[in-house]
Amino acid sequence: MSTGFFGDIGTIQYEGPDSTNPLAFRHYNPDEIVMGKRMEDQLRFAVAYWHTFTWPGGDPFGGQTFLRPWFEDTMAAAKLKADVAFELFTKLGVPFYCFHDADVRPEGKNFAENTKNLNEIVDYFAKKQQETGVRLLWGTANLFSNRRFMSGAATNPDPDVFAFAAATVKTCMDATLKLGGENYVLWGGREGYETLLNTDLKKELDQLGRFVNMVVEYKHKIGFKGAILIEPKPQEPTKHQYDYDVATVYGFLKTYGLENEVKVNIEQGHAILAGHSFEHELALANAYGIFGSIDMNRNDYQSGWDTDQFPNNVPEMALAYYQVLAGGGFKTGGTNFDSKLRRQSLDAEDLLIGHIGGMDCCARGLRAAAAMIEDKALSGPLDARYAGWNSAEAQKMLKGEYTLEDIAAQVEKTDLNPQPRSGKQELLENVVNRYV
Amino acid sequence: MSTGFFGDIGTIQYEGPDSTNPLAFRHYNPDEIVMGKRMEDQLRFAVAYWHTFTWPGGDPFGGQTFLRPWFEDTMAAAKLKADVAFELFTKLGVPFYCFHDADVRPEGKNFAENTKNLNEIVDYFAKKQQETGVRLLWGTANLFSNRRFMSGAATNPDPDVFAFAAATVKTCMDATLKLGGENYVLWGGREGYETLLNTDLKKELDQLGRFVNMVVEYKHKIGFKGAILIEPKPQEPTKHQYDYDVATVYGFLKTYGLENEVKVNIEQGHAILAGHSFEHELALANAYGIFGSIDMNRNDYQSGWDTDQFPNNVPEMALAYYQVLAGGGFKTGGTNFDSKLRRQSLDAEDLLIGHIGGMDCCARGLRAAAAMIEDKALSGPLDARYAGWNSAEAQKMLKGEYTLEDIAAQVEKTDLNPQPRSGKQELLENVVNRYV
Amino acid sequence: MSTGFFGDIGTIQYEGPDSTNPLAFRHYNPDEIVMGKRMEDQLRFAVAYWHTFTWPGGDPFGGQTFLRPWFEDTMAAAKLKADVAFELFTKLGVPFYCFHDADVRPEGKNFAENTKNLNEIVDYFAKKQQETGVRLLWGTANLFSNRRFMSGAATNPDPDVFAFAAATVKTCMDATLKLGGENYVLWGGREGYETLLNTDLKKELDQLGRFVNMVVEYKHKIGFKGAILIEPKPQEPTKHQYDYDVATVYGFLKTYGLENEVKVNIEQGHAILAGHSFEHELALANAYGIFGSIDMNRNDYQSGWDTDQFPNNVPEMALAYYQVLAGGGFKTGGTNFDSKLRRQSLDAEDLLIGHIGGMDCCARGLRAAAAMIEDKALSGPLDARYAGWNSAEAQKMLKGEYTLEDIAAQVEKTDLNPQPRSGKQELLENVVNRYV
Amino acid sequence: MSTGFFGDIGTIQYEGPDSTNPLAFRHYNPDEIVMGKRMEDQLRFAVAYWHTFTWPGGDPFGGQTFLRPWFEDTMAAAKLKADVAFELFTKLGVPFYCFHDADVRPEGKNFAENTKNLNEIVDYFAKKQQETGVRLLWGTANLFSNRRFMSGAATNPDPDVFAFAAATVKTCMDATLKLGGENYVLWGGREGYETLLNTDLKKELDQLGRFVNMVVEYKHKIGFKGAILIEPKPQEPTKHQYDYDVATVYGFLKTYGLENEVKVNIEQGHAILAGHSFEHELALANAYGIFGSIDMNRNDYQSGWDTDQFPNNVPEMALAYYQVLAGGGFKTGGTNFDSKLRRQSLDAEDLLIGHIGGMDCCARGLRAAAAMIEDKALSGPLDARYAGWNSAEAQKMLKGEYTLEDIAAQVEKTDLNPQPRSGKQELLENVVNRYV
Repeated sequence: MSTGFFGDIGTIQYEGPDSTNPLAFRHYNPDEIVMGKRMEDQLRFAVAYWHTFTWPGGDPFGGQTFLRPWFEDTMAAAKLKADVAFELFTKLGVPFYCFHDADVRPEGKNFAENTKNLNEIVDYFAKKQQETGVRLLWGTANLFSNRRFMSGAATNPDPDVFAFAAATVKTCMDATLKLGGENYVLWGGREGYETLLNTDLKKELDQLGRFVNMVVEYKHKIGFKGAILIEPKPQEPTKHQYDYDVATVYGFLKTYGLENEVKVNIEQGHAILAGHSFEHELALANAYGIFGSIDMNRNDYQSGWDTDQFPNNVPEMALAYYQVLAGGGFKTGGTNFDSKLRRQSLDAEDLLIGHIGGMDCCARGLRAAAAMIEDKALSGPLDARYAGWNSAEAQKMLKGEYTLEDIAAQVEKTDLNPQPRSGKQELLENVVNRYV
Repeated sequence: MSTGFFGDIGTIQYEGPDSTNPLAFRHYNPDEIVMGKRMEDQLRFAVAYWHTFTWPGGDPFGGQTFLRPWFEDTMAAAKLKADVAFELFTKLGVPFYCFHDADVRPEGKNFAENTKNLNEIVDYFAKKQQETGVRLLWGTANLFSNRRFMSGAATNPDPDVFAFAAATVKTCMDATLKLGGENYVLWGGREGYETLLNTDLKKELDQLGRFVNMVVEYKHKIGFKGAILIEPKPQEPTKHQYDYDVATVYGFLKTYGLENEVKVNIEQGHAILAGHSFEHELALANAYGIFGSIDMNRNDYQSGWDTDQFPNNVPEMALAYYQVLAGGGFKTGGTNFDSKLRRQSLDAEDLLIGHIGGMDCCARGLRAAAAMIEDKALSGPLDARYAGWNSAEAQKMLKGEYTLEDIAAQVEKTDLNPQPRSGKQELLENVVNRYV
Repeated sequence: MSTGFFGDIGTIQYEGPDSTNPLAFRHYNPDEIVMGKRMEDQLRFAVAYWHTFTWPGGDPFGGQTFLRPWFEDTMAAAKLKADVAFELFTKLGVPFYCFHDADVRPEGKNFAENTKNLNEIVDYFAKKQQETGVRLLWGTANLFSNRRFMSGAATNPDPDVFAFAAATVKTCMDATLKLGGENYVLWGGREGYETLLNTDLKKELDQLGRFVNMVVEYKHKIGFKGAILIEPKPQEPTKHQYDYDVATVYGFLKTYGLENEVKVNIEQGHAILAGHSFEHELALANAYGIFGSIDMNRNDYQSGWDTDQFPNNVPEMALAYYQVLAGGGFKTGGTNFDSKLRRQSLDAEDLLIGHIGGMDCCARGLRAAAAMIEDKALSGPLDARYAGWNSAEAQKMLKGEYTLEDIAAQVEKTDLNPQPRSGKQELLENVVNRYV
Repeated sequence: MSTGFFGDIGTIQYEGPDSTNPLAFRHYNPDEIVMGKRMEDQLRFAVAYWHTFTWPGGDPFGGQTFLRPWFEDTMAAAKLKADVAFELFTKLGVPFYCFHDADVRPEGKNFAENTKNLNEIVDYFAKKQQETGVRLLWGTANLFSNRRFMSGAATNPDPDVFAFAAATVKTCMDATLKLGGENYVLWGGREGYETLLNTDLKKELDQLGRFVNMVVEYKHKIGFKGAILIEPKPQEPTKHQYDYDVATVYGFLKTYGLENEVKVNIEQGHAILAGHSFEHELALANAYGIFGSIDMNRNDYQSGWDTDQFPNNVPEMALAYYQVLAGGGFKTGGTNFDSKLRRQSLDAEDLLIGHIGGMDCCARGLRAAAAMIEDKALSGPLDARYAGWNSAEAQKMLKGEYTLEDIAAQVEKTDLNPQPRSGKQELLENVVNRYV
């Protein structure tokens, strides 16, 4: 039964590239086969509950712009919100959604009430999932909005906040398990510092290490089969966030013995804020074997904060999906739109239009990436470039059979004089442009 | 015997804060005792050979501005350069210097000639060191300027370049040992990539891991007692450098089993380029136990490249030395001025003036930092802020004696409601301003 | 009569540099004479109503942290807020304050009610001003927070919003006049765009040009003797703001015939966001003759948004006040603290401590700047550097008495071969460090 | 007669989108009609002499990587370089090229010899132009590389340098006129400062104002019909460059009475460095009526310096050409590739490949932009968005027929309550993606 929120807009259909219908897909064609799988199963789209249904349109200089009938903090409003949410998931045909506890339930007066409220909504979601076939890509706990977390959750100087955060995560992991979630995500929005003057870095990192280990232990205890994912971000809200980028997270995981238990959920906008391209973060996660999932959005290159816009640059997205596919594609992960409307986009239909545009761009990016992989358009030249390392001598050097002295003697003896070869960057960029 | 390059300028003297003599120290007073040591032994200043004697004043849009009598690529010029260098070290009264092989010797036509040229200069330096008492803080190999390294040294797609680089490092480690150097530094100027399109990240990281392990093995073999230091930098010259920042280097060290063998040499300008404050990088290195040495300079906050200016902001420098002292002060490391004159600063005396200003600022920063530590101005409030973690219950939580479930049950049972406390950032900033 | 909000904290006293009392001034000594004026009259401090009394501590990822008894939208709360505000002004001994209409009055249901509410508060302020001697540095209208302004105020595509904004500014100018304000400020928080795709730049600039002209016309009509000030900011909240920086504002003023009527209010944080140093913006405003006033704060160099922190770096502030004094010092303008507490600084006393630290730093910066000016420490070398331009021939060239051809002929004839001279940057930086 | 530099590569042909020949155009089809003109006449491509033939591949950490037979500073080498250059222009089929004096002639020992050398090359070029039909898009003087310009050219503290610069510009304008150049460009690489401590902003701006006026006067005197263009850049090589961005240049032009005489040459990379999108700078130049020409390239979004890469992102380029076409298309201006190979791209063919990729992307961008304009895809919704301003009342408000008081009275009387409308940003972004 429709809530009527979207008026008479029906299910969004694939109409092909020539369509000019703003409420149709031009490229996203769920059943199309891409690299041996249905496009839907390659992309594994999810809608983010928070941006889409909870964010009021505020920014640091202005308040609410969106007027949604569910914008009050009651259980009835939470259920209306859920009704509209599943209506949107269904209209878009996305297979997944993601949420924080605080997005979906009214705020309780204490931990017990929060839990009770969450559980009531989880039951409601479970029914909705069954009715619609929509599934949970990941659940997570909001450990950053409430005033109690202002100085950190796991990394708070006050162990009581650590305890409160731990209890909250337990509840959210239970909810995720119950809803069949395929991953559980940790984004440490307040796990960082505002000033080193009042911060003990070592203590806080150790707290965080213990916290994540507890999460992993609990996952095994309850038989949760999904992945635990950390989402890197360099800063904002804090001046410095401990999960700065993929490399930093990997160092943290190694330090606390977590590198085989935890993977990363990589967001385009967070990569940009950390001074990296999105594809860099993906490639590095592949290199370290910790790639999990992506938060798809785009950051404005001229803005210094997290703009969380819907993605729209297909050539850039093709390079991102290239890394995803080169790493074997999504396992438990997927493409979550951590994207929000601009605060001036007031209409109900804008919620659909934003996602439609994003899904179409992802579809184009995926197709281009798949074609490059199938053609070995990049991997062929890459193999050739490193071919010298396949020689027996080079392999010995790499495997530690030669010392610095051995090598120096050899260099001197053979009067080795390596000759540079063109890196062919422009050629490869032109090759990519054949696919996008 | 004077080269005459500095005209009639004699040894720079400490004249106290009221001096207006541009060729005197106002704050750097080597024999003053700071936290139980002579100031000279706390700061352990070094002059960087490259910026001071080798850089011609070029930038991407203009060539040489400095006219130095030793600017030609001959052994005679190299020795004249050495004469002037030790004259400057002596006039400034710095106890240390640092160099790359390519700074000090003429470029040979091949590896053998490079080695021969280097060894000739090393002998010359050895004599100079003995005459002047000046010592070598660290040696390093320039694996980035020569065309052969354009696509990387250890991370080159061509194993011959890896070999050439390895041989060169061996030579430079030998030179460093011979000169009694206290550290050996690896800065990976070309260990990174221009484009992922032609780069195999995993292969290149493995190459780098092997390379650094060879360096460590050779260090032990030859009985070099100094520290091996990696110098992080996020980019420039490459688009992405593998040793991005301290956190990234630590992850790399853990991955290749090097975390107990290699430390970091942290540069202010590189920290800024990576999106961090200098004190952040220092604090993180302390937290991970890998702090080694510093390259002191400053990066222009409005420029997006490495400006390598002489440091001049005492409040910022006090926060940096605070971290150095809080970590126990320098062991093998020191304060190397990786600072160059602006290209318009043409006069011989400018070389002295730049260093004098930098040394004076370091002295002020050190004194302020020492006073804060002795007064427990920051550590007192810090201990109080985390005091809650000293309780037995909190310690159990941290040591893994409680599970998520235990904690959740406890939070619910006690209706735990943690109350935020002021972070007192402005108060602490005001406290710091009492010292600077 | 005290509201009790600040407990038993009395008036903040000057206790001199050796004081360790966090609730005393160590450097701000209002009656001390600096360059012939009382320090209070040189610095002309103002407290910003919005950050200090209105901001709840929220950020993009979390809500209110400050619990203030006046945080509700009623007239009674507005008056309580005013009571506390004037108490703080008095305790700090600041001569001025600044406000937006929306900071001080409850939000009305329409324009008429807004006006009525504002006028009631203005009367209340007038009485307070008389009682305390505190004056209004500037008034301004908040044309950015309310949902109606989401797409711009003067630059809105809807002329009705332009009209609403114009009406609001009229009211606020009336209020400013009534309260004896010394300036009226326009900060165009929404005068910019989110995307060029829906924006007509030319139309919007023309609207803004007309709007500011109306303000100037109205100023003259009502006999307001203060200055009209535009406050540049490059972005945030919008992707691009039309008043990007001082240079952009000057171009705008020239285009719409306003360059003799409007000056600028320059904020440190906005300068940084625009890619400039604070002193650059001040120097440029002096060069163009449009310097008006300053918003003193600091932006975190590692954050890409407007952090509005209390200033704390004295060397940087000395360079800023150097420009202020070099331009003749403040006329109608002053030093407004557009600075807010970090959201973790919860205590009432933190409001005082933040300002105390800022005022002390300003006092130190001012003193250093004044000494440099009195000693001609920088202006002496500057005059010498440009002395060549004093020759008759050079002046002719500058005054247009020679053509390109004349000059080329002369260069060829005399075989002119200009010789570079050292820019002496490091020397001058060392000189500055003698004063800070 | 071929120099043989490009081996057996012939003229680059248009082979259509399905071609995989790296030495063919896939999209650039000179004779295709786009918006009523041949594609060649819309795009007006030029090759930049400096990057393509003069740059040795150096960066701040490494020297020459390119080995070109013309890399010596003799007249014979300069002519060989010219031969190869015109060969490349012809192979690519570009109608234009651009140069600085210093790119094309050997460096003389003084002004007279520079002039003589330049003139000899100009004669050589004239013949080449006649033979090939290739024309000069613009000429310019290099007033930044030589040591004499280290502290500025027009803005030097030494009037002799101003004179030398003026003489050099005269010579280059003469050369440009002689070669039938369609524009003369001024890029102020050293017109800025390294530190305000030794800089008199006002004096230097006045010098620059006089300088540009002399250029304009000389243009009219010699009957040069082309446009005088200033090229904005915010920084690099200097810390701050006076021609920061389009808005800054416009303010400068207005100040010195030049706004009807001088236009701008806008570079993508410079826009990015200034914190703007390329399309912003183009749109603003259109709004101010000073759009002239473009330097097409791309800046790496993660690098803080001017990377001058060949452009490759078609969606971004479509938005740029949209502004060019919306402003009426190029008049005297064109699309100059201010783009250089990556320093690892060593092969002769890479010079062609870089340009081919760039030209193809421009062609795609142009086509998309033209289609959007012809369809009124963006301008239709834009007109609708601002339609309210067409009413008589709104026009009166805009034309100054109402005062603030009139408007306020009207707002109050009508109880005006403007209602926000959706900005439709995501919809418009999706529309753009239909075209790219």
